[in-house]
Amino acid sequence: MSTQSPGERRRVRVALDERSYDIEIGFDTLPELGEAVARNTGSQRAFVISVPPVARRYGAKVGRSLREAGLRVKRLEVRDGERSKSLTEAKRLYGALLDAGADRSSVVVALGGGVVGDLAGFVAATLFRGIPVVQVPTSLLAMVDSSVGGKTGVNVPRGKNLVGAFHQPRLVWIDATTLRTLPPRQRAAGMAEVVKHAIIWDAALFERLEAEMESVLALAPGAVLPVLERSCEIKAEVVSRDEREAGLRMLLNFGHTVGHAVETLQGYRGLLHGEGVSMGMVFAARRSEEMGLAPKGTMARIEALLRRADLPTQLPDHPRKAYLQAIAVDKKKRDARIGFVALSGIGRAETVPLLPREIWPAGRRRSRG
Amino acid sequence: MSTQSPGERRRVRVALDERSYDIEIGFDTLPELGEAVARNTGSQRAFVISVPPVARRYGAKVGRSLREAGLRVKRLEVRDGERSKSLTEAKRLYGALLDAGADRSSVVVALGGGVVGDLAGFVAATLFRGIPVVQVPTSLLAMVDSSVGGKTGVNVPRGKNLVGAFHQPRLVWIDATTLRTLPPRQRAAGMAEVVKHAIIWDAALFERLEAEMESVLALAPGAVLPVLERSCEIKAEVVSRDEREAGLRMLLNFGHTVGHAVETLQGYRGLLHGEGVSMGMVFAARRSEEMGLAPKGTMARIEALLRRADLPTQLPDHPRKAYLQAIAVDKKKRDARIGFVALSGIGRAETVPLLPREIWPAGRRRSRG
Repeated sequence: MSTQSPGERRRVRVALDERSYDIEIGFDTLPELGEAVARNTGSQRAFVISVPPVARRYGAKVGRSLREAGLRVKRLEVRDGERSKSLTEAKRLYGALLDAGADRSSVVVALGGGVVGDLAGFVAATLFRGIPVVQVPTSLLAMVDSSVGGKTGVNVPRGKNLVGAFHQPRLVWIDATTLRTLPPRQRAAGMAEVVKHAIIWDAALFERLEAEMESVLALAPGAVLPVLERSCEIKAEVVSRDEREAGLRMLLNFGHTVGHAVETLQGYRGLLHGEGVSMGMVFAARRSEEMGLAPKGTMARIEALLRRADLPTQLPDHPRKAYLQAIAVDKKKRDARIGFVALSGIGRAETVPLLPREIWPAGRRRSRG
Repeated sequence: MSTQSPGERRRVRVALDERSYDIEIGFDTLPELGEAVARNTGSQRAFVISVPPVARRYGAKVGRSLREAGLRVKRLEVRDGERSKSLTEAKRLYGALLDAGADRSSVVVALGGGVVGDLAGFVAATLFRGIPVVQVPTSLLAMVDSSVGGKTGVNVPRGKNLVGAFHQPRLVWIDATTLRTLPPRQRAAGMAEVVKHAIIWDAALFERLEAEMESVLALAPGAVLPVLERSCEIKAEVVSRDEREAGLRMLLNFGHTVGHAVETLQGYRGLLHGEGVSMGMVFAARRSEEMGLAPKGTMARIEALLRRADLPTQLPDHPRKAYLQAIAVDKKKRDARIGFVALSGIGRAETVPLLPREIWPAGRRRSRG
């Protein structure tokens, strides 16, 4: 695989007044991270939080870059996997940070995928009531979705991400080179969110993915960078207009109502977030057709694209009642209508207030999106 | 003791753009709380978090008022005392709220003193990344200080309030009648923060306290309401100008650098927060004189007023080194200058960047502020 021309960079601005920040996208850019962290935070002390496989590959490079920029560096590790996104793990990190002398001007560098970004982001959001955080996502999912927008959080026994805070990063640093070591299944799962951005916001991006899905997944030069950039732009635009999910930002939940429910029902085992979202998007597209909102064929087109990314599109068998309950808890609304994100076509989404039993009508086949 | 004329109310506005809210001050106003909660939050579900002694006295009245305003009400209790301000207790509350069906539009009503306000506020700040909270302070300390300004937090083994979030309440409801059942020592401890507001901001309030300290502490009609109002006004003004403690708000830390250190060294046992602050203020006033900032006699005047409130003004004996260490950890700055709040006179404070060893010079007597 040839490398991208070294100088090629993309910058996306997340406009949020005094909390604005840049997303920097490129290849082989980790050596320049330190200088950017210093410039964007003014911190003299960095705490790099990561998981073992990522730390092994990129920890030394990131540490060196930060030190060369004049920062003192301490690396902390959490175990890989969704189970690390817990209050227990947050508590352990508070202790480690405090013991190592973290202060209000220290910066947390979240180096890894969504779990690291959410957990390290939450710790940064709450230590001393908030210290700076820089997101360095190394998974596709984290690059286009979780590292941008300031949502941080941990899981509690009753559900995912039920505890958290909004805390915008000072900088998001995407070195697309790290995708090369991402397992194909993880790459596909991240692609689900890219497809989601196209579906809710940008028919042109959807068409580009239809034309180049395999090249993007293979990280072909020239294919990845514009897709990352456009996907981050969409996320940035939505977040800029609605930071705290009062309205527009809810569109980003497309596919997530049922997607999260599937994750809950599977107990987070054997299913990646993006895989749940993939099934949920096919489900939502089908419901959009059934409700007469989206033209016939919308679901088929979405399903075909997701299949090309090797993503599952069929929901696993669970009783309807179990799905309804998981939906109600997840959406933080009981006995109330949920803002279900439906499509009026590719590139156009809207929120429809529905009861869980309307989202999933009685008699509905379970096994298919 | 005669009661205040029933209609007399004071309202202080905390101006923070879309996060603005009112502080409502009066006597015998708990029966009207529910209507105000409904109006200010739009919530249909309230979770009243309290400690047993407060719940016993006011829980039923608050519950009734909320129900009469159309809200469904669930009461939750936490154990009294600083130890309840923990992540463990927060976790228990998340579970209880979720099990009882809390959703994003539910309101948390924090009924009690500073511990309840900080803990319930933190839970509200982080459940679903933030749900509405109404503060109903029942201690003097909470009324004039912790319930206003949005600081929430819990303690961790390494120190007090090291984990938390900024989360402004939708309303602060002060029924001064609740002060009548507050133990005199707690009343005095709260008075330390009132005196602090006067010292840093308002010489006229200081003079009023010099004239009426005993009447205020005795909750004499006509003496309490204006003092509560003015004290809340000062806090509101400072918070409005500097919500996240970037500068001006640091003045509210007057007396707290050493005050918190004393609390840490005593292990939070046998010492109330306001008592630590009282000692810390005398210490800071003395340092201000020594540094040539405040005129001679400033400390004596402050000490005399605090003594009239039965507050301690002498620091307990601990090695200087222990004080320095406690100061460094508490202020979230290691090996760095701390914004020490000094006085240039009664009613005028400023921040002076000092190293811990400059705050507490070698050879300094330990036993006196």
